[in-house]
Amino acid sequence: MQPFVFWNPTEVVFGKNGVKKLGKLVKKYGGSKVLLVYGKGSIKKTGLYQQVLDSLKEAGIEWVEHSGVKPNPVLSHTREGVEKAKREKVDLVLAVGGGSVIDESKAIAAGALADCDVWEFFEFTQTIKAALPIVTVLTICGTGSEMNAGLVITNEEKKAKYGFRSPYLFPKVSVLDPTITFSVPKDQTAYGAVDAFSHVFEVYMNREDLNSPIPEGIMETLMRTIVERTPQAQENPEDYTARADLMWASSLALSGLTWCGVSAAPMLPCHAIEHALSAFYDIAHGAGLAIVMPAWMRLMKDEKAEEIKRFASRVFGVEGVDEGIEAFERWLKRVECPVRLSEASIPESDIPALAENGNRLAFHWGYKEYTKELIEKILRLAV
Amino acid sequence: MQPFVFWNPTEVVFGKNGVKKLGKLVKKYGGSKVLLVYGKGSIKKTGLYQQVLDSLKEAGIEWVEHSGVKPNPVLSHTREGVEKAKREKVDLVLAVGGGSVIDESKAIAAGALADCDVWEFFEFTQTIKAALPIVTVLTICGTGSEMNAGLVITNEEKKAKYGFRSPYLFPKVSVLDPTITFSVPKDQTAYGAVDAFSHVFEVYMNREDLNSPIPEGIMETLMRTIVERTPQAQENPEDYTARADLMWASSLALSGLTWCGVSAAPMLPCHAIEHALSAFYDIAHGAGLAIVMPAWMRLMKDEKAEEIKRFASRVFGVEGVDEGIEAFERWLKRVECPVRLSEASIPESDIPALAENGNRLAFHWGYKEYTKELIEKILRLAV
Repeated sequence: MQPFVFWNPTEVVFGKNGVKKLGKLVKKYGGSKVLLVYGKGSIKKTGLYQQVLDSLKEAGIEWVEHSGVKPNPVLSHTREGVEKAKREKVDLVLAVGGGSVIDESKAIAAGALADCDVWEFFEFTQTIKAALPIVTVLTICGTGSEMNAGLVITNEEKKAKYGFRSPYLFPKVSVLDPTITFSVPKDQTAYGAVDAFSHVFEVYMNREDLNSPIPEGIMETLMRTIVERTPQAQENPEDYTARADLMWASSLALSGLTWCGVSAAPMLPCHAIEHALSAFYDIAHGAGLAIVMPAWMRLMKDEKAEEIKRFASRVFGVEGVDEGIEAFERWLKRVECPVRLSEASIPESDIPALAENGNRLAFHWGYKEYTKELIEKILRLAV
Repeated sequence: MQPFVFWNPTEVVFGKNGVKKLGKLVKKYGGSKVLLVYGKGSIKKTGLYQQVLDSLKEAGIEWVEHSGVKPNPVLSHTREGVEKAKREKVDLVLAVGGGSVIDESKAIAAGALADCDVWEFFEFTQTIKAALPIVTVLTICGTGSEMNAGLVITNEEKKAKYGFRSPYLFPKVSVLDPTITFSVPKDQTAYGAVDAFSHVFEVYMNREDLNSPIPEGIMETLMRTIVERTPQAQENPEDYTARADLMWASSLALSGLTWCGVSAAPMLPCHAIEHALSAFYDIAHGAGLAIVMPAWMRLMKDEKAEEIKRFASRVFGVEGVDEGIEAFERWLKRVECPVRLSEASIPESDIPALAENGNRLAFHWGYKEYTKELIEKILRLAV
């Protein structure tokens, strides 16, 4: 067991009708006038928007809206949110959406109490010293941002997709109501599930300690759950049990619990490589991961033989390295994810350029062993 | 999946030499003058006491001592601590010990900021509204008090052993250094491990939802880990891996994570029955649980057949209800715990009186179905 520090102070309010408690929860964490952050308005179609307003009104809480967050949240829109938060003197940021909305809300919460431009935190030229309290209502599972202190924002001018973490950025409370995700379509359900799966998978495969049964067992549990529940949620979108288990698995996946004792921080090389893909092509993060992960396994099958064997046996119930990789690919296909570059219309000829970009990202993330050559080898195994 | 609220804000600092960081951690949580609470002085023999003082001194932190906490902490000593904390105007309570020391520290932290007598919180005649920050250094695993908000104190005059929980009573930070537990003797290692095991076992057996793979998998992982590591720690007291896994398993066992989605609160009927035993006889809590749990299983083997079968298969690798109970008993014997009343010198003739007391406790804990007759039946299965 490696030394670790674990701290996750987010309050999770899980179950049906959680939004009814929202006003009271916002009040509990000091909110009297909130910046209500959301995306392109799907919450208006589902009725969630009105439920949120009703709950705020009932608790006597004022709000200012900041809508239009993009699927990959951008700096320009974040800066608008920061200005609005300052101008309107809000005292809490309320995110109603998925990982993008929550990530942008975190950046706004940090920027609202800063004298510097918020991008400085991403460049590490300034250190965050405070943030407005953040409350979230999750509408789509996958990133785990609702229960951690990290965020990723894209600077469109600099073409840089950077992230950082700060203990100030844990949401104070996250409302997790699985019924809100009933309306998430089949493909988005899979991409979110694969993203959550990858957060566990990458830690499992890259851990430094193979003799720690607690993190190992927790990770196997989360992966097994996602494997079982994703197709169920796809087949029956209103399967509460499937949606609930996917939601809790996604939140725990990146909560910090899984790597306690096995790594100081999560090592996510497939994520770095995938970011190179989704920077060049219009491909969902989860779909890109579905292509990269099996290819990564094929390259690593000797080096990570023991990890892959355990994964094969305990997550998919098959014995052997190749059998494990095949079972994983079969499952990815079953939930209708692409598993080859061609399925995402990415031509083989782009691999060198993708590898170069992937290497730059991997270097930024601290994975120095992920050279251009290594990434190229991985991507060629996804042809 | 049942609805739940999960919130556990304790920072866990896990690994060797954690005590060196203690002074800084105390400062981080606002301590400048602490009440140093400990037991009968074993920390002086092991050198831990001096390490604690060195770390406090280095950070410029003053301290006042409150030693002599009993294995079952008592109200009179707690009240002395409260008075000392008020008189000396300490701003943080530092617990260095096991569950008893931490529990008494929590009561002192609550009492120090209260106008009423601290026992009123246990009688529910007053509600806790604040508490001094609590920091712990754990010296013996089992109760899990280092990572939760509960405590149990005995009122000697009223002969009442009561507990309560409050969100104010989560330790701010707990230093978990497995090497500190190298000196814990064989029997105490087992009793602590069985206590931790029971916190998981009781939730596993009494859950309302058998279709929640996340809590189920986490609980099976923790129980398997305790089963594997306890004899290893007994055979080689300085086996870091065994001690570390036992420590983390014990802390997680009662952290609230295990019952997310399966029960609103942990249901611990064997604990209520065991408290009746240890109130009458000089028997360790873990030893009493080792007697009660298998007897409880024998009585419940039809009603809880599915739960016991899964437990048998996934924790002990055997198939069948009876086989599961036998495997559990074999393990308890292997780690040198008593499994029959006679082994703890408790005569059969005392069973009616024990059952009556057990029923009183079970009623206080809210387990109304645990009548005197039912408890008597359970205890007769431990003859």
